[in-house]
Amino acid sequence: MQIPIYENILKSNDYLAEENQHLFNRQRLFVVGILGSPGAGKTTLLEKSVAALKQMNLRPAVLVGDLATSRDAERIQQYDIPCAQLTTGGACHLEAQQVNKALKDFDLGQLDILFIENVGNLVCPTGFKLGEHIRAVVFSVPEGDEKVEKYPATFKKADCIILNKIDYLNLQEFDVEKPKREALALNPNLVWLNCSCSTGEGIDEWINYLKTSRQNLLNANS
Amino acid sequence: MQIPIYENILKSNDYLAEENQHLFNRQRLFVVGILGSPGAGKTTLLEKSVAALKQMNLRPAVLVGDLATSRDAERIQQYDIPCAQLTTGGACHLEAQQVNKALKDFDLGQLDILFIENVGNLVCPTGFKLGEHIRAVVFSVPEGDEKVEKYPATFKKADCIILNKIDYLNLQEFDVEKPKREALALNPNLVWLNCSCSTGEGIDEWINYLKTSRQNLLNANS
Repeated sequence: MQIPIYENILKSNDYLAEENQHLFNRQRLFVVGILGSPGAGKTTLLEKSVAALKQMNLRPAVLVGDLATSRDAERIQQYDIPCAQLTTGGACHLEAQQVNKALKDFDLGQLDILFIENVGNLVCPTGFKLGEHIRAVVFSVPEGDEKVEKYPATFKKADCIILNKIDYLNLQEFDVEKPKREALALNPNLVWLNCSCSTGEGIDEWINYLKTSRQNLLNANS
Repeated sequence: MQIPIYENILKSNDYLAEENQHLFNRQRLFVVGILGSPGAGKTTLLEKSVAALKQMNLRPAVLVGDLATSRDAERIQQYDIPCAQLTTGGACHLEAQQVNKALKDFDLGQLDILFIENVGNLVCPTGFKLGEHIRAVVFSVPEGDEKVEKYPATFKKADCIILNKIDYLNLQEFDVEKPKREALALNPNLVWLNCSCSTGEGIDEWINYLKTSRQNLLNANS
């Protein structure tokens, strides 16, 4: 018998995030963290994603973090999938412990992919692992092409960048290659995807990326 | 002689913000805090503002907060006005003490309006007063019309909301009256301005608002 004497010391966010990930792995559940500024299009991307995944007979679910309101969760629930809302009451990011508690609202063994949508904030969620297998940052054309320079940690710690709202590219100055080049310099393993949730452009690539990443995880854990 | 025995206890952020404001008032300097998400258009609004104020023979200056890079300060410096950059090194908001230190870079007696541009973040700067006389939140059409509901504290604690990028209104669904109504319900004293930094629409109203607010302050302190 082990006595968990260090439990309180070790239960920092990272430790709990690791616990969350062990739980996900035991359930063969692929988990994707979604980060981005307010209005970057996180919830819209999730709407497109869960619709596409359902059509492929995959079983998605969504955990939505927000300061206030259950508005995003209501948008997701229309797709008739498991969805829970985590309201932080003003806190600027999710933490692993909150996620852990919220997992009780899901039957994890009945799911294939869980998305965790963080609070709309390009800064604060960066340092807090939640146990996700991949972290995707949604960043949109109207935000401007200098955002990688200005928020380097966020881009460095991402696995995938979704440049959303590319249908706005002809409406403003925005050099797509510039943030991409800067992000890849910070993190050469980054996957960069251009997308428009309005026109549907790039959604297939994103779904393929999710499917491949999930399969890699299942192979690694089998 | 007074011995500042409580100094360390009282020098909380609010206390220091009050100190900053006393200093501004002694110098008859009107100070405007600018908050908003990454890419809402804070720096572009400041570019338009300082150009317009200079033409009116007012003497503006800008203190720019950012996680990394001095890019925004470089944009402002082109207008040949006093400008300083505060780099937070990853921290998600400015605090009154940082502002206080940065004030040494300005000859305050030679200025009429100082803008303090916060880090791009709709959440975290909300709770930290800096000593500003008014706080303006820049919020842009591409962010979506549900942002007041989702970030109520930010809108409640603002004096003025600038809804920017209204030239995008015909490109997406966005009900201008909805966030305005919600914001005024949270804070009936709020001034709401629609604006486009690209077309110039609404900039005159914003400049008039600044001039009137400054005059009211000078009258109150005279």
